[in-house]
Amino acid sequence: MSAHPRLSLNQATIKYADLEHALDVTRASGIESIGLWREPVAALGLSVAVQKVADSGLRVSSLCRGGFFTEQAGAGRQAALGDNRVAIEETAALAAAGADGSAAVLVLVAGGLPEGSRDLVGARERVRDAIGALADDARAAGVTLAIEPLHPMYAADRAVVSTLGQALDLAEQFDAGTVGVVVDAFHVWWDPELLAQIARAGRGGRIASYQVCDWVTPLPLDVLLARGMMGDGHIDFTTLTQAVLAAGYSGDIEVEIFNQEIWNTDAAVIATRTVESFARHIPV
Amino acid sequence: MSAHPRLSLNQATIKYADLEHALDVTRASGIESIGLWREPVAALGLSVAVQKVADSGLRVSSLCRGGFFTEQAGAGRQAALGDNRVAIEETAALAAAGADGSAAVLVLVAGGLPEGSRDLVGARERVRDAIGALADDARAAGVTLAIEPLHPMYAADRAVVSTLGQALDLAEQFDAGTVGVVVDAFHVWWDPELLAQIARAGRGGRIASYQVCDWVTPLPLDVLLARGMMGDGHIDFTTLTQAVLAAGYSGDIEVEIFNQEIWNTDAAVIATRTVESFARHIPV
Repeated sequence: MSAHPRLSLNQATIKYADLEHALDVTRASGIESIGLWREPVAALGLSVAVQKVADSGLRVSSLCRGGFFTEQAGAGRQAALGDNRVAIEETAALAAAGADGSAAVLVLVAGGLPEGSRDLVGARERVRDAIGALADDARAAGVTLAIEPLHPMYAADRAVVSTLGQALDLAEQFDAGTVGVVVDAFHVWWDPELLAQIARAGRGGRIASYQVCDWVTPLPLDVLLARGMMGDGHIDFTTLTQAVLAAGYSGDIEVEIFNQEIWNTDAAVIATRTVESFARHIPV
Repeated sequence: MSAHPRLSLNQATIKYADLEHALDVTRASGIESIGLWREPVAALGLSVAVQKVADSGLRVSSLCRGGFFTEQAGAGRQAALGDNRVAIEETAALAAAGADGSAAVLVLVAGGLPEGSRDLVGARERVRDAIGALADDARAAGVTLAIEPLHPMYAADRAVVSTLGQALDLAEQFDAGTVGVVVDAFHVWWDPELLAQIARAGRGGRIASYQVCDWVTPLPLDVLLARGMMGDGHIDFTTLTQAVLAAGYSGDIEVEIFNQEIWNTDAAVIATRTVESFARHIPV
């Protein structure tokens, strides 16, 4: 089987595989790149994880994830910033261990409204301030912080950054090499401003990651798991992918699917299905 | 009990009450205005419904709902346009039957992607064309067509119009008296452009309806029912209401809640709870 050379399998798609198994499955399916998550890296320990990634011969396309920046000043917020500094170092180490063409990209999720708060404006200001507090660390480590706008249905409990335009408003306050954005099809496909904002992101050199998976209906009980394999839902990946490519994005394209049924399936089967779905639906 | 004079109880909040019972419950709770739905009006027949509304002494704040404009050209689309023409006439008749200060406002939901289609752009064009086809009828009847942007989580299956800005881009192609927008807190609260777009809507005289209910988490299995009483969720009704008032909106404020638990409760209890929640959380 031959996988597209720009396809990256985000580890969340085969969530129940540990890091070693995920690396094996990815390579065995012919996929050349992997998007990593911090939890399975931590389970192995960073230095062992770095060695396994180096041994795999795979590229690393991103590390998921940092962020969660909306807490008020205090110990919780300091802990979040400290944890993100660790994540920046992990990103640099893992990308350096990956094959040529690896991307030192740390995906950031903004965080939701703090418990009991209804102040979106304040929460968004704290996201900006946190990125400001981390930008020097990221620059020094050669890491790009990639702000991921999440679908508006997560605005209360997960991410107060909901659109690509809003993510760009934040990112543009910093150097393009240090702070970029993630274009995740699932989160942004519905946005009437999408194509204009992708073009804007391209002009600024801000697209740090492009992730794909489909929007399926009806939504499941847990809307965090409302994602499907490309082609199983409603997203026009042709228009979207062409726009991202026209905007100059030349990196790996991650398939990241949170879906219980997919997680319950053997990882190797899912990797193969990912290769096929990508070939059929992502015109790169 | 004294209800706020601008409070209107949208009939969907007490969904299992028929029209007569809804009118009785609304009046008995001290609420002066009601937002009607077509189905319970049809169940009684329009002429009887008009008489009952006139007898109630209540204002009518809107009729829900027309729209569903995304089908391709053909019999289905012609049927949708014809049905909307009927809804325009119903709106005019019911508003005329309501007490002074009633609003002849027909709420429009755009419709989702047609079965099997991934073409959001085409679907949105058909929404605009349908409004264009209905504008003369609405103007002649003295009815305002009110485009309601729905939360982006409904973009695939219910409404390809997802933001207030997008609704205004559509509405502004027509006279302000003929085509306006609905500001529904549940659908738009997350939008980083919200306050700017409300101000824009106000400048153009485009706010035809303001609806409130809260965004509660976690979302229920059926996300159509993910609404709560004001104060039970995450929305900052102070900032939002002040913005709508500052934009010049002087009409009724509808409480519209789709929530199974609320529907399972006695309508009179819900009306009372609505009066209290409105008084506490909506600074009008």
